[in-house]
Amino acid sequence: MHTIIGTWKMSYPALQEANALLAAGAPADEAVVEAIVRVEDNPNYTSVGYGGLPNRDGHVTLDAAFMDGRTLRCGAVICVEDVRNPIRAARLLCGRPENCVLAGRGAEQFARHAGLPMRDMRTEAGMRRWRERVSGLETPLDAYRGHDTVCVLAVDGSGRMAAGTSTSGLFMKEAGRVGDTPLIGSGFYCDMRYGAAAATGMGEDIMRGCLSYEIVSQMRRGASPQDACEEAVRMLAEHMQGLGETGDNISVIALSPDGRCGAATTLATFPFAVGRPASTTLYAAYGDRSPVRAVAPDEVEGEC
Amino acid sequence: MHTIIGTWKMSYPALQEANALLAAGAPADEAVVEAIVRVEDNPNYTSVGYGGLPNRDGHVTLDAAFMDGRTLRCGAVICVEDVRNPIRAARLLCGRPENCVLAGRGAEQFARHAGLPMRDMRTEAGMRRWRERVSGLETPLDAYRGHDTVCVLAVDGSGRMAAGTSTSGLFMKEAGRVGDTPLIGSGFYCDMRYGAAAATGMGEDIMRGCLSYEIVSQMRRGASPQDACEEAVRMLAEHMQGLGETGDNISVIALSPDGRCGAATTLATFPFAVGRPASTTLYAAYGDRSPVRAVAPDEVEGEC
Repeated sequence: MHTIIGTWKMSYPALQEANALLAAGAPADEAVVEAIVRVEDNPNYTSVGYGGLPNRDGHVTLDAAFMDGRTLRCGAVICVEDVRNPIRAARLLCGRPENCVLAGRGAEQFARHAGLPMRDMRTEAGMRRWRERVSGLETPLDAYRGHDTVCVLAVDGSGRMAAGTSTSGLFMKEAGRVGDTPLIGSGFYCDMRYGAAAATGMGEDIMRGCLSYEIVSQMRRGASPQDACEEAVRMLAEHMQGLGETGDNISVIALSPDGRCGAATTLATFPFAVGRPASTTLYAAYGDRSPVRAVAPDEVEGEC
Repeated sequence: MHTIIGTWKMSYPALQEANALLAAGAPADEAVVEAIVRVEDNPNYTSVGYGGLPNRDGHVTLDAAFMDGRTLRCGAVICVEDVRNPIRAARLLCGRPENCVLAGRGAEQFARHAGLPMRDMRTEAGMRRWRERVSGLETPLDAYRGHDTVCVLAVDGSGRMAAGTSTSGLFMKEAGRVGDTPLIGSGFYCDMRYGAAAATGMGEDIMRGCLSYEIVSQMRRGASPQDACEEAVRMLAEHMQGLGETGDNISVIALSPDGRCGAATTLATFPFAVGRPASTTLYAAYGDRSPVRAVAPDEVEGEC
């Protein structure tokens, strides 16, 4: 039985389509990539792909990664511009034994040579927000309320697992800034023997706990996806609190090889979607650790 | 009691100096950075810093990272040119709560603005090898026999721990290629409660097992540094062998908070150096898993 899980409300419609692909027999890797492509192509999601908010210099720079749960190989692009679907570049790179993680110009060159579509990833709306921020007209509120990195994990009918992530990173980030999204073990990890996990939120904090690897490692030792997510987030958040930090923007999802899901967050509410043969459902996890539950789209923040 | 450990014979003289610093009361972070700076500045080490071998396009692009074992914060520069000491840039970035990992031009800009010395990192000898390879005069043997990424881990007299890594990456790598060196959890990890670890060799393989985090995670569960190194390498190598791959270029080192060291390798011989108050000693670990032992410099390959 297949299962697919994705971060934020924005993944909900994408997962409905990817769920249909899985039901029609598509493999996990294709479902993950197609779900993420749909999010990347939508200009309304300002933290991923086309229409992503610019860095301080007015450039939209993107990170994406893909991991194959059978080979443990990953592919990633770091800090690329003008690649329409960074997740497709990451998927292609994942097939390579060497040179599978590429940054900047080299990654763009790869995408171009591979024949992937290129496009200017800036939108008028995104550039307007950037100009307003630079000129002091927009006050620096949270850039992303109710969305951030899109992360998708899937297991298909044959038991193959895959993970994918894609983001344009923090609004007004410094030129060259890389978060957890393209970093194996931090932003994502997938081992079809034990499970998959991915993280979204403040990348600089997520990487301190190598959260995705920690979650899969706990599943390897027998923890359920839900317990593994809660325990990994608790460990990191407690350490940060000991240092006087809040650690208040960390969210994770996990998927076991038999299709059980887990999620945990330090936000008040973290929406995520799950697709199974019967249906695709929106859920929320809560920072107060009240139980994960199914929610209606209008109950949680974010676009879909 | 302080201890410092570094990869390859090339770290041996650097660790003698860093050991003296620790003995004089320098903190772990300073000892790690100064040891790595010495390796970066030496043009005879063609896999690190000045004199590093170029990528396919004839550019020397460098990766480095630093991690503070108290805060779990890291800093890293990815794919930078012209920064004389990438480890110094990584050390500075480690102090930041955001924008602590920077790639390419943004990272170079940061180093320049921070007042770090810049230099053309290419040497005549390195460019000659590149021209010979490009023109087919040099046969593609192993680029690095007896050396590779420099990784240094230290614990100082007060129990503070730090980890650092620096490399110019694979000779003839693709433009933009990133290995495990600047990736937290894969190339390095450091938590002063449990220990530190770092990895060198084929980065694309090391990251599949998130080796450094796995080693520290086993130490957290009570394993000795030596057992943790052996078990982490065994797990990944066995998985790779199951896929028909050799996994024959993976080496790791580890350090516990109380100064015990560990190392493991899938190479025939992997030299590493350890500095303690009494002396600095060169050791070797062996791919056939015969016991780690002290060696004389002329017993093992590599420059020092």
